[in-house]
Amino acid sequence: MSPSQLRLYLVTDRGLSLGRDLLWVVREAVAGGVTIVQLREKDAGTRDFVALGRHLVEELRPLGVPLIINDRVDVALAVGADGVHIGQSDMPYADARRLLGPDKIIGLSVETMDEVKEANSLDVDYIAMSPVYSTATKTDTAPPFGLEGLREAAALTRHPSVAIGGMNRQTVAGAMACGIDGVAVVSAICSAPDPRAASSDLLTDVLRFF
Amino acid sequence: MSPSQLRLYLVTDRGLSLGRDLLWVVREAVAGGVTIVQLREKDAGTRDFVALGRHLVEELRPLGVPLIINDRVDVALAVGADGVHIGQSDMPYADARRLLGPDKIIGLSVETMDEVKEANSLDVDYIAMSPVYSTATKTDTAPPFGLEGLREAAALTRHPSVAIGGMNRQTVAGAMACGIDGVAVVSAICSAPDPRAASSDLLTDVLRFF
Repeated sequence: MSPSQLRLYLVTDRGLSLGRDLLWVVREAVAGGVTIVQLREKDAGTRDFVALGRHLVEELRPLGVPLIINDRVDVALAVGADGVHIGQSDMPYADARRLLGPDKIIGLSVETMDEVKEANSLDVDYIAMSPVYSTATKTDTAPPFGLEGLREAAALTRHPSVAIGGMNRQTVAGAMACGIDGVAVVSAICSAPDPRAASSDLLTDVLRFF
Repeated sequence: MSPSQLRLYLVTDRGLSLGRDLLWVVREAVAGGVTIVQLREKDAGTRDFVALGRHLVEELRPLGVPLIINDRVDVALAVGADGVHIGQSDMPYADARRLLGPDKIIGLSVETMDEVKEANSLDVDYIAMSPVYSTATKTDTAPPFGLEGLREAAALTRHPSVAIGGMNRQTVAGAMACGIDGVAVVSAICSAPDPRAASSDLLTDVLRFF
């Protein structure tokens, strides 16, 4: 994938969407400039996950915005998504690659410098350094990278990279200055009063670095 | 699949295994005569699920006991399991079949007479009527079939079938008399003081009908 597709990466979160329809939130975010979307559904049944993924593929494909499925390789295959995002406790990379084939996007979360190094031995398409800062969105995360760690990780990795965890208008510039390709955002878009305007503002902040 | 493989169907449940190693429980159950095993892991991360599935494939394949994965087509594909078991809120049958190919086993839970009928239009390999009785194992189930409903369902289906929900030494004979091919068991084996002896006893009860 091109690193330019990683500029503003939306990770969905139904619980943080203030009761609004997830499809609407995604649609608005994409209209505002989100360059890639990850569908993350930790509690949905597989049938609902597949139905939602299928809707999103239909909406996003004509717009050229890749749809990435969190964790579930089966859902990605069923709906013909562009790839999966896996964490360190999800399917091992080698299995995911074997099932998805060489052309699908596989992103990997890395939580420590050792995992950044280890990812260099894999042909993942991008890595997500997680978290930059502690957040209320995910409470099971590793100690945060902070900007110093993020800078070190960005220098160490051979992959395109995004940063996630506490990314918002106050923090995006600091993270981008560390040499990453984009930022991944959950609540700063999903919980924004106006997800389209929020996306547009965040994208502007990111694109200043290119 | 041959209906004879469905005689005594173990569905794993880590929480009901009294803190004992799940691999040990399965090994004992198979030694006692279980004819098919479904690995059900509702809370495990995908990485752990895959690792456990891989262990079980290695153990069960040489014994000729099929391993079925609950819900997760990706896990089944990754570990080379014999098939999947899907419920009405899991991946739609058509998607699962497309991903798994024609040779893998796909079993389907049916909770109403309408679902039994609908399953007749699918080429599933077996159906599981669920539940026969209310149980503490699963609390999100439909109203129970009861023996009268089970008899009706068994007469209606064109597929091999098992019954699940409240199956134990007191209830197996009544269920088998309804014309099903076998019984599926969770706590009567997973929570038994001696899973091997419990399996052996249950199999004896079932085989009286053949």
